[in-house]
Amino acid sequence: MSHRPRLRDLGITIGRLPTGPLNALVDVPGVRVGHVTLIAGEGPLVIGEGPVRTGVTAILLHSDHGMQRKGAGAAFVLNGFGKCLGLPQLAELGTIETPILLTNTLNVWRVADALVDWMAERNPGVYSFNPIVGECNDSYLNDILGRHVRTEHVRQALERASDTETSEGSIGAGTGMGGFGYKAGVGTSSRVVRSTRGEYTLGALVVTNTGAAGDLRIDGRHLAEGAATTPPPPGSIMMIVGTDAPLDARQLGRLARRAPLGLARAGGIASHGSGDFVIAFSNAPCDSSPAPTFDEGEEAGVISDFFRAAVEAVEEAILNSILRSETMTGRGGHVRRGIPLEAVRALADAPT
Amino acid sequence: MSHRPRLRDLGITIGRLPTGPLNALVDVPGVRVGHVTLIAGEGPLVIGEGPVRTGVTAILLHSDHGMQRKGAGAAFVLNGFGKCLGLPQLAELGTIETPILLTNTLNVWRVADALVDWMAERNPGVYSFNPIVGECNDSYLNDILGRHVRTEHVRQALERASDTETSEGSIGAGTGMGGFGYKAGVGTSSRVVRSTRGEYTLGALVVTNTGAAGDLRIDGRHLAEGAATTPPPPGSIMMIVGTDAPLDARQLGRLARRAPLGLARAGGIASHGSGDFVIAFSNAPCDSSPAPTFDEGEEAGVISDFFRAAVEAVEEAILNSILRSETMTGRGGHVRRGIPLEAVRALADAPT
Amino acid sequence: MSHRPRLRDLGITIGRLPTGPLNALVDVPGVRVGHVTLIAGEGPLVIGEGPVRTGVTAILLHSDHGMQRKGAGAAFVLNGFGKCLGLPQLAELGTIETPILLTNTLNVWRVADALVDWMAERNPGVYSFNPIVGECNDSYLNDILGRHVRTEHVRQALERASDTETSEGSIGAGTGMGGFGYKAGVGTSSRVVRSTRGEYTLGALVVTNTGAAGDLRIDGRHLAEGAATTPPPPGSIMMIVGTDAPLDARQLGRLARRAPLGLARAGGIASHGSGDFVIAFSNAPCDSSPAPTFDEGEEAGVISDFFRAAVEAVEEAILNSILRSETMTGRGGHVRRGIPLEAVRALADAPT
Amino acid sequence: MSHRPRLRDLGITIGRLPTGPLNALVDVPGVRVGHVTLIAGEGPLVIGEGPVRTGVTAILLHSDHGMQRKGAGAAFVLNGFGKCLGLPQLAELGTIETPILLTNTLNVWRVADALVDWMAERNPGVYSFNPIVGECNDSYLNDILGRHVRTEHVRQALERASDTETSEGSIGAGTGMGGFGYKAGVGTSSRVVRSTRGEYTLGALVVTNTGAAGDLRIDGRHLAEGAATTPPPPGSIMMIVGTDAPLDARQLGRLARRAPLGLARAGGIASHGSGDFVIAFSNAPCDSSPAPTFDEGEEAGVISDFFRAAVEAVEEAILNSILRSETMTGRGGHVRRGIPLEAVRALADAPT
Repeated sequence: MSHRPRLRDLGITIGRLPTGPLNALVDVPGVRVGHVTLIAGEGPLVIGEGPVRTGVTAILLHSDHGMQRKGAGAAFVLNGFGKCLGLPQLAELGTIETPILLTNTLNVWRVADALVDWMAERNPGVYSFNPIVGECNDSYLNDILGRHVRTEHVRQALERASDTETSEGSIGAGTGMGGFGYKAGVGTSSRVVRSTRGEYTLGALVVTNTGAAGDLRIDGRHLAEGAATTPPPPGSIMMIVGTDAPLDARQLGRLARRAPLGLARAGGIASHGSGDFVIAFSNAPCDSSPAPTFDEGEEAGVISDFFRAAVEAVEEAILNSILRSETMTGRGGHVRRGIPLEAVRALADAPT
Repeated sequence: MSHRPRLRDLGITIGRLPTGPLNALVDVPGVRVGHVTLIAGEGPLVIGEGPVRTGVTAILLHSDHGMQRKGAGAAFVLNGFGKCLGLPQLAELGTIETPILLTNTLNVWRVADALVDWMAERNPGVYSFNPIVGECNDSYLNDILGRHVRTEHVRQALERASDTETSEGSIGAGTGMGGFGYKAGVGTSSRVVRSTRGEYTLGALVVTNTGAAGDLRIDGRHLAEGAATTPPPPGSIMMIVGTDAPLDARQLGRLARRAPLGLARAGGIASHGSGDFVIAFSNAPCDSSPAPTFDEGEEAGVISDFFRAAVEAVEEAILNSILRSETMTGRGGHVRRGIPLEAVRALADAPT
Repeated sequence: MSHRPRLRDLGITIGRLPTGPLNALVDVPGVRVGHVTLIAGEGPLVIGEGPVRTGVTAILLHSDHGMQRKGAGAAFVLNGFGKCLGLPQLAELGTIETPILLTNTLNVWRVADALVDWMAERNPGVYSFNPIVGECNDSYLNDILGRHVRTEHVRQALERASDTETSEGSIGAGTGMGGFGYKAGVGTSSRVVRSTRGEYTLGALVVTNTGAAGDLRIDGRHLAEGAATTPPPPGSIMMIVGTDAPLDARQLGRLARRAPLGLARAGGIASHGSGDFVIAFSNAPCDSSPAPTFDEGEEAGVISDFFRAAVEAVEEAILNSILRSETMTGRGGHVRRGIPLEAVRALADAPT
Repeated sequence: MSHRPRLRDLGITIGRLPTGPLNALVDVPGVRVGHVTLIAGEGPLVIGEGPVRTGVTAILLHSDHGMQRKGAGAAFVLNGFGKCLGLPQLAELGTIETPILLTNTLNVWRVADALVDWMAERNPGVYSFNPIVGECNDSYLNDILGRHVRTEHVRQALERASDTETSEGSIGAGTGMGGFGYKAGVGTSSRVVRSTRGEYTLGALVVTNTGAAGDLRIDGRHLAEGAATTPPPPGSIMMIVGTDAPLDARQLGRLARRAPLGLARAGGIASHGSGDFVIAFSNAPCDSSPAPTFDEGEEAGVISDFFRAAVEAVEEAILNSILRSETMTGRGGHVRRGIPLEAVRALADAPT
């Protein structure tokens, strides 16, 4: 549990749109988030033993993940140098049939396998599941080849999932990550969008493991301190954007393509080794009326506000993912330093 | 080991181009194939116990799968209703860094995880691997939720891999599959293409689990017998096309998009539930001269011959995958009937 | 007007599904087709003068092409070596706002420009239109650099459009085309599909300019005569598939990816120089009930039948496009020979 | 000719990398740029007469645009709500065979047609060309339905092209555009990248017609003045990124996907109606040694610097496109106000 402030606690606001009550992905009605954090050992790397600095994060679209109730979904791959699972079927059918899990690069297959067990228990007689699992590479701090996330951790993350979970920083899948020369991890944010059908919420949850030292921008401004000297991380960022608005797969694909604009504003350039993936989903019920999804006129009228919401929420979630992460020492004594809060506060207090 | 004839043993020839010496994917110099077949138990389904009708197939691009030696690659997804792993990075970088493994739908994650171990042993100090694993759904005959392919089976398939492996039918990943109303499995074929740089080989290996009963076409002709009555399989086909020609990722993408034309000629329509994936690779050395890959003029001159080779080899591989599969009884007494050879022979002997 | 038989006049049937009443794209309720055929001059090529062997074909989705009434649409590009216009916006928005026009390669921009005039007249105050225009290359017979399709021809094609237009062969955009070593042109066919919502029609209209001599397959069988000796055409095929079924853009994209399977069955391999494009559309009204488009369950239940319909209709349309084309002599005395009907009849009469 | 300052004239620097000597796309050796600007009439709109506020911009990749010398290229479509021509063939073959032309939305087809004439004159006996033409919608100021860019203007733009052309603002294709509530137009910038093969230049040229009032960010900071009140433009931005580095089509595709990150930093969100296209090219000679293009190791080593260069150059080009545009009055008395330079200067002088 991070005791560090969030961006808004420092008086810095991103964008124009109002946030939801918790300024988090769980503001989207029905969405729940759960984390399992694994921290154990220190000293030199012994593959299979540790040190362990990793975890798993679960995002549930709705209370019941039976196969009878799916979400609409789409992905955008800014940089495919990553192992994110489940995307071909998502592209084909436009549906998400499992919770979305996040973990480290080399855990993805075990996590997917455990998720299939969990789904199979809830859906007897079904012999096909498409788990969606994303990842970043925490090998700088963690014994990544040890694949320390096991079946029971996946279950715990799913079972702990709550609609008030707003933890950030070195937690869950973000435990061992770093970005922009600092320690980084999980961050989240949300926005409220008004449409002619009423008000909807869009939330973002990111795991940040990307960004070169010195590139970070906080609401457009660089920190006064010199560039951090930590070597750049192996990279990657997972950006999950969810909404209860009735967007269909094509519209969610459009939304997903805007999420990296938020990354850009935080300073990212999507470097070669950074696998940068966006998954966008809607958990709107399929029987919403007058029509399941926004029609052409509604799309033209309101979708730009959802685009704006996605850009803002992703930018703010990334900044939260860094601000909220304490310094961590991991395998072989590798250190990722938490961003110095005084420097951020100085920036917040400076005249603009 | 199937004692059934291949298509050419019946006097039926597909297309114009000459085959390689074994008429198989392993005709591509450097390529090796290995299968592990798991058949155990009978009677009603007990998840985790059986009956087991499944397996794993390994395709190695060259003798040494260190990370210093990759193949060029590309994929085409005709129908993304499947779980094939590793495609985002393949699309981004155009390289294949592991052997390609094939298995059943719910084994893909365990097989990928085991493949990472195998790669990690060969590449100390590397903390990122992109396993490519494809699948079809064998749940009609097999206890698919039991995920009976384990780490040791993956290792065996990799270690058994040989450049003379031409087995077909109910073997490896094809063990529990069916297609066009019949038992189906693994099939393979190859073609030789001449270019101004010399002669190259293109080979295909498929796992067939697609096709409605009554739709099969053998060299364009329907069997005289009435449509088989077995219910249609859950679907899917994996089509692997490899070559030693110096094609780059873009050119291999073009090649991959032609492979389904061979499926069409065998009678496939890529139905809703059939996840139809193509993976194309080249194992040409990166230091080939005068240039690593065909330039624009060479592409214009010869690539249509590679397209033709891919269409022909895929069509013939599919037909072999059916012809070579014996009748099999699996879980709950489900039966997939081997195609009656007399009917095929009658067709071969008919005047055209 | 071709006096040659269609495929079914020879007793050859493609596939399983019933055709619509005219076995043509215009069987789709609301769809109209119009052709303008330009044939003038003979002898050597004089750029800008002739000989002229070209034309334009218009496909209207419904009676009123105001911007208030669009169709749903999607494209699939099997081989992008072509100049088809309008695809980026089609991919983004999933809508077709103009008639679909077909012509030759170097006329596409003039035809699009004329179509914008026609649309602007009908939609005062609108300053943006996305014309969709496809093409094949008729330079073997036609003075293609002369761009002989002018504004008035586009208007005529649009104004002549009729729901009984079933002409095939050397007409409209097909006038100067060739395929599989023979003269080719426009072909069309249709299928009827039953769903729980009732009966729908799917129609195809193709302009064939692809296929190597000797590759043609008629219901899977090669002609007895030796391969035609005409040099291969520059290539390309436009495949238009339309339906009144309430398919959305994603579902139409799936449909579009199946159309080339029909090309494959007719013998095509999508060679290097053949720009092979599919455009799929639905003209179902947006206010259909209970929902505008098939939901997930309806898709799983019936979409494979639409896939089958698309494969069958495209295959049959291609065969009609060849059967119905008479021998034509064009620029510089170049000749494309009509397929010999006796050979096709012999094949139709042969035992299978 | 704008007498307004460029961004760097005000002491504002974007990013880390050094610029080329002219800080413009023409810094890329071999690249030439030419503009034709059409300004005529005032008062109410009379379609076909005016007022005219439009133009055309030509980008030549090298001195000789014969078909024997092509560039490598790739596109990325952030928002396909636009009419950019030539992308399917670019995606398939990865080559650019004509100059890249930019104009307004409804001129694209006429401009493409004129470009074909120009190419045909230089390439006798060639009957296929793939013109690449991009656009934004200038209908707020211009008689867009009048399509005032004619063949002779296209020729002039091509013939005037020069390797010292660095004009910006209301010129060429940018003449009638607006963005972020201000007048906008053409902007350009460049960066120098060092690699083990030596130094390369990357340049950007944009036509800005996107951005909501109040969203503009100059080096991350908002202007002190309240949001401009001009209604948002119909949108769209064309981003052209060129380099002499030996990047192949896949690598250029990666580069193209980063260009919108520069747009994001300038404040863009890619709203619904904004067709946002990137075209990336390399004019490196195909016979460069030791290999035509960067191999895998070179890509891993240096491509992130090219990504950074693209992000920086696009951001700076967009800012230049606004700074350099004077207030303009167009059709029906519509006004787009030039950004107040004092406000920008105040921002430049403020402490950061």
